[in-house]
Amino acid sequence: MESLINFAEEQQPSPVMTNSWSKQEAGKSEMPKYAGGFVLVHAGAGYHSESKAKEYKHVCKRACQRAVDQLRAGALAVEAVTAALVELEDSPFTNAGMGSNLNLSGEIECDASIMDGKSLHFGAVGSISGIKNPVLVANCLLTEAQKGKLSAGRIPPCFLVGRGAHDWAISHGIPPCPSEKMATKFSLSAYKRNKRKMEMAEKMDAGQNQEKKRRQSSENENGSGCLDTVGAVVVDSEGNVAAAVSSGGLAMKHPGRVGQAAHYGCGSWAENACNMNSYSAAVSTSGCGEHLIRTMLARECSAAMQSEDAHQALLEAMQNKFISSPFLVSEDRVLGGVIVLRCCRCVEAQPSPNIQGAMVEFLWSHTTESMCVGYMSAQDSKAKTHISRLPPGTVPGKSLAIEGGVCRLTGIVD
Amino acid sequence: MESLINFAEEQQPSPVMTNSWSKQEAGKSEMPKYAGGFVLVHAGAGYHSESKAKEYKHVCKRACQRAVDQLRAGALAVEAVTAALVELEDSPFTNAGMGSNLNLSGEIECDASIMDGKSLHFGAVGSISGIKNPVLVANCLLTEAQKGKLSAGRIPPCFLVGRGAHDWAISHGIPPCPSEKMATKFSLSAYKRNKRKMEMAEKMDAGQNQEKKRRQSSENENGSGCLDTVGAVVVDSEGNVAAAVSSGGLAMKHPGRVGQAAHYGCGSWAENACNMNSYSAAVSTSGCGEHLIRTMLARECSAAMQSEDAHQALLEAMQNKFISSPFLVSEDRVLGGVIVLRCCRCVEAQPSPNIQGAMVEFLWSHTTESMCVGYMSAQDSKAKTHISRLPPGTVPGKSLAIEGGVCRLTGIVD
Repeated sequence: MESLINFAEEQQPSPVMTNSWSKQEAGKSEMPKYAGGFVLVHAGAGYHSESKAKEYKHVCKRACQRAVDQLRAGALAVEAVTAALVELEDSPFTNAGMGSNLNLSGEIECDASIMDGKSLHFGAVGSISGIKNPVLVANCLLTEAQKGKLSAGRIPPCFLVGRGAHDWAISHGIPPCPSEKMATKFSLSAYKRNKRKMEMAEKMDAGQNQEKKRRQSSENENGSGCLDTVGAVVVDSEGNVAAAVSSGGLAMKHPGRVGQAAHYGCGSWAENACNMNSYSAAVSTSGCGEHLIRTMLARECSAAMQSEDAHQALLEAMQNKFISSPFLVSEDRVLGGVIVLRCCRCVEAQPSPNIQGAMVEFLWSHTTESMCVGYMSAQDSKAKTHISRLPPGTVPGKSLAIEGGVCRLTGIVD
Repeated sequence: MESLINFAEEQQPSPVMTNSWSKQEAGKSEMPKYAGGFVLVHAGAGYHSESKAKEYKHVCKRACQRAVDQLRAGALAVEAVTAALVELEDSPFTNAGMGSNLNLSGEIECDASIMDGKSLHFGAVGSISGIKNPVLVANCLLTEAQKGKLSAGRIPPCFLVGRGAHDWAISHGIPPCPSEKMATKFSLSAYKRNKRKMEMAEKMDAGQNQEKKRRQSSENENGSGCLDTVGAVVVDSEGNVAAAVSSGGLAMKHPGRVGQAAHYGCGSWAENACNMNSYSAAVSTSGCGEHLIRTMLARECSAAMQSEDAHQALLEAMQNKFISSPFLVSEDRVLGGVIVLRCCRCVEAQPSPNIQGAMVEFLWSHTTESMCVGYMSAQDSKAKTHISRLPPGTVPGKSLAIEGGVCRLTGIVD
């Protein structure tokens, strides 16, 4: 197993590399009063062809801008992360919301979840159809649960699936969207291509016994391009963190299959600093849902962020808790990626008591061929985007790339 | 917060209490060749009225017997735990399979999951209708996933929900069962009662604002009797552990709501001893799904079992990771229960090299008014059952009871 340490190279202004980290010093002139915060988004760990790179970067940029617009308006992390996700879901290029992968029956069924590091509340939907923005339903579940019990002392749900999730969404004011409008030319042609491929594979395997067939066909891996789940992590001006993730799931999945995006601890995780945790941390994952579920990767990476060296801790988590996880010993390739953000108040002396600082460390790591990310602080004029790739010759699912940066946030306290 | 330490008192032959633990020495005469293993089941943490106590104990006894029949026939833990669950689901008295709680629409939707400590594979179904034994679908998902990839390299699902889960089950030879056959006279009358109660509560609240309404109605808690999810943990003659759980969910839940029983890390957990873990451990939970999800109680209790003192470790886990969990600070009462089993090979000198021993420690703990459990080793002639109760005057959701025992297994190695 190899591990590859790369660093983001696309930062504007040019990064100052310090101790293997890129440092961003934000321009104070762009900082509105009371505003602050930082967002990191991903458009999936998978394979992003050069031809589509521009589109992926573009949607990441827009998603960052949406979150920052919210942060500048004083929104909490959980609202900003939702705004970023809506933008990512609305892109026909990502495998979430519009343009999601079709399942075995040619239908779209989405998973999404959101976690608020402040309240530690969680909302998730699984296998939901006919809703353009599944993250809005997850966020609404989270919001409703925070209001306390329902009539007759009933406990509000944190996780809804299928038809019930759809009906709950409608009754809570989220508009329906006909499934046929959510499919794109691209997702429909991918479905036809996958279906042909599957039928051919099954034809070729006919006559061979089931065990043999399965082992042979495992060589034709899921097209990595099908893993482009989206997600975001945010810290707001108060230092609250939030994380969200949304996915159309694996192409040609069985109807009713729920992936990591809807799974507590697996798709998204966020915890504010508290007595037990020195750092606030937020994580969003992407990749093969079953691998991410069985390793509970979001929660593991969040827990790792309490170590002193975030970069080293994430590297070790990806190696020991993912690639070499005892939960995945039977898997030949372990496919996934994470974006991670951790934050703490600056301890250094401030020039004035009405200026508070926060240090945000942001990282991404993946075992897939590539991962597309974007990031922006509320003090930046525009988002930076990057497609991280495993170096040529390395093996997806067995090697990893890890990159990141540091951003110091300043904010005027009234 | 109080913690109550009780101990099982129903063991036959009379237990020898050693260091706050009851010891069971199994009669060798009943031990079949090659056979061994132990099962601990629960018929839910909730409220078990004296009038129904006999029925609950009876079904626990039968479930233990089913698992032990399997163990004696040389079955692995995962097969034995499935057999126990089928018996528990088939009882019209438990809130799982037959006789499950009805949801808001008067329908039955079940959750179930199973985990194999040997392979660390996991299978789960959520919000599944029209299947008498949801655990069989969860077990089938686990078995199918262990066979490797599907045609065209597709990754097999570990978690299916709703209609898709039902259709998958049928296509894998699990017979359908009309939903109306799964409802019982008891579940139907409970539904009518709950519906009236809800309508009355909503009528009374009419005119009050939503916030106020919610806070007031929270006094009418979920009838604790509605929490009687079932589960089991097993260790087989090879020392493999497995855990399973099955539930009809909260009464009057929203359609599509998925509880802890289908949630990885929350409903069931099993891990064989390995390089990192000295003990094999298996856990199954019961209670308020949302509380058990947000605290990931099954996995937390399993992790705690790597401490030297299992009893103390479980007590601390229930207090710190459940009742006082930072994830549930806004909850006035935290309702749940666990059964836990941990196992290690005996280190003491054996009388003969062809006799191997294993020490099984089994525990249950709950914050609900009561919890019904049963347990049996393959060396016993019949199962022991017990309804553990919080002592009078203590507050459910804020206090806990913890009980347990030790069983030494011997088995002839051929």
